[in-house]
Amino acid sequence: MKKLINDPLEVVEDTIVGILKAYPRHFRRPKGSKRVLVYKESPIKDKVGIVTGGGSGHIPVFLGYVGPGLADGVAIGNVFSSPSSDAIYAATKEVSAGKGVLYLFGNYAGDSMSFDMARELAGLDGIPVQIAKVCDDVASAPSEEADRRRGIAGLFFAYKLVGAKAAEGASLEDVKAVADKVIASTRSMGVALSPCTIPAAGKPTFSLGEDEIEIGMGIHGEPGMERTKMKTANEVAEILVSSIVDDLPFRQGDEVAVLVNGLGATPPEELYIIYGKVYDILSDYGISIYKPYIGEYATSMEMAGCSVSLLRLDEEMKDLLDAPAFSPFLLQWEV
Amino acid sequence: MKKLINDPLEVVEDTIVGILKAYPRHFRRPKGSKRVLVYKESPIKDKVGIVTGGGSGHIPVFLGYVGPGLADGVAIGNVFSSPSSDAIYAATKEVSAGKGVLYLFGNYAGDSMSFDMARELAGLDGIPVQIAKVCDDVASAPSEEADRRRGIAGLFFAYKLVGAKAAEGASLEDVKAVADKVIASTRSMGVALSPCTIPAAGKPTFSLGEDEIEIGMGIHGEPGMERTKMKTANEVAEILVSSIVDDLPFRQGDEVAVLVNGLGATPPEELYIIYGKVYDILSDYGISIYKPYIGEYATSMEMAGCSVSLLRLDEEMKDLLDAPAFSPFLLQWEV
Repeated sequence: MKKLINDPLEVVEDTIVGILKAYPRHFRRPKGSKRVLVYKESPIKDKVGIVTGGGSGHIPVFLGYVGPGLADGVAIGNVFSSPSSDAIYAATKEVSAGKGVLYLFGNYAGDSMSFDMARELAGLDGIPVQIAKVCDDVASAPSEEADRRRGIAGLFFAYKLVGAKAAEGASLEDVKAVADKVIASTRSMGVALSPCTIPAAGKPTFSLGEDEIEIGMGIHGEPGMERTKMKTANEVAEILVSSIVDDLPFRQGDEVAVLVNGLGATPPEELYIIYGKVYDILSDYGISIYKPYIGEYATSMEMAGCSVSLLRLDEEMKDLLDAPAFSPFLLQWEV
Repeated sequence: MKKLINDPLEVVEDTIVGILKAYPRHFRRPKGSKRVLVYKESPIKDKVGIVTGGGSGHIPVFLGYVGPGLADGVAIGNVFSSPSSDAIYAATKEVSAGKGVLYLFGNYAGDSMSFDMARELAGLDGIPVQIAKVCDDVASAPSEEADRRRGIAGLFFAYKLVGAKAAEGASLEDVKAVADKVIASTRSMGVALSPCTIPAAGKPTFSLGEDEIEIGMGIHGEPGMERTKMKTANEVAEILVSSIVDDLPFRQGDEVAVLVNGLGATPPEELYIIYGKVYDILSDYGISIYKPYIGEYATSMEMAGCSVSLLRLDEEMKDLLDAPAFSPFLLQWEV
């Protein structure tokens, strides 16, 4: 295992410490909660708080989406592991401004359990909590069982739009309604070219042959839809986009935001090659692109591969997408 | 070779096409110059033009640093190969607004030849051109031969500050003077953990053992200072920072900008771990950090590893660092 780390068991703590040294004006780590980061100005008056969280190893997911116009706090798990309910509860108290809190996270069993428990604890304190789980990965379950689908890079759209709605001063019910709408309108699918290594485990999470890729593989190496021979960028883009478009389904005349997300080791050049083909395919469908996002928005450490996400937009969603937001991990929201 | 590409010989063209589809409001490709991109509003009245360029495979270097407050145009070579003098000359004509043009690029023999030839062609058109070569890599030559040093991630600082000076409407001489000052005040050093593969070659540019890293390796795989057993993040940070600090030398009381740059496959988590130690080391030296930049600012496709760059700042340079700038590839300049 070749990683620029110190003690493999301290990777999460060392990462958080590095981030706090880098962005002392942005983040605050509450006393007694080593696995919690909140936006320094939290709680923000008259604003619904947004708490997210999940396993480490996916930066900028999750902590990179904390900031003005985004989430307010994050509970941080070990690499690829759920955060504790205690951490989520602590984050909840830090960001609660009396208007309720939305839990926004990816749909995984362990995360769901922790967030459910934290909601019970918050309820005892009289903090109303609503839950919204992102389940954008069309490869992880059939559309009839969409609530079993995993959350992947489409999380980005949820943070951006839901965060903007909360920043407007909307009620918990209205913020939750936007979350539901974004989640219902987002579809993603990925492809993995190589595995990654959890530091504490020391060896790759899976293996792929020299000439093999896996279509639909999850961001923790969960099995995908098909293991196949290496394909061209154009072929990969066709598979991903057609699966996504058929699923919602997206229709001629739709306007979408597109995210081509790199999983970690895939160079930006390749993401732009994929995007070029995604653009052509969507043009052929008669679907127009409102905004493209291309880069590393949800990673799996050094995994090679990418995912494509589409968000179907209406006028309200376009405004929320365009609303100001800031995080030091932010990439290119001003395109 | 596992890459999300189509024809290995068309990687550069396919990348440019993808970028043009992604950012049609930002870039323009001049007719007849397939390997040139310029900021769409070029030439900008009363502004010195800045032309950069170099081999592909390093995004956001070079084309990602074209935009307001940055460079105006870029000449694009094949992967890890110099651009043609024709492309540089074409870019020069596109961005020249009658106030002269600065060529700003990394110090490599092939690039220097192409830019020198382009300057001669521009001279025949009466366009005055000055040249500034970034040579920040302390591992590539001893300090007595600093003009033989390669340009690596420190290019970022040059684009940002020199671009800001040009945006102020400064004369060619004043823009060149800032370039010289930034170059004289920037030092970098990197470490490679794994190689990358040039698509047209199809195999890795070098090999490293399972437990080996190379300190000081160049961004094209040029030999470094030492091939050694894997080290901890703290040890790597110590080696890189001490080499950089000793070289200028940076002194107690200095104020610096810090760039921890990922080469491609190294996860953000590891860059923050490195940054945490860089911060501590600089504190021990009595050197204060004005701004940190952590992310992928100059890549080598899927190479794993990182580099650390320091820029010694004075008041003018701080203002130039903080001046507005925009590129869709921009990461986190608002920290």
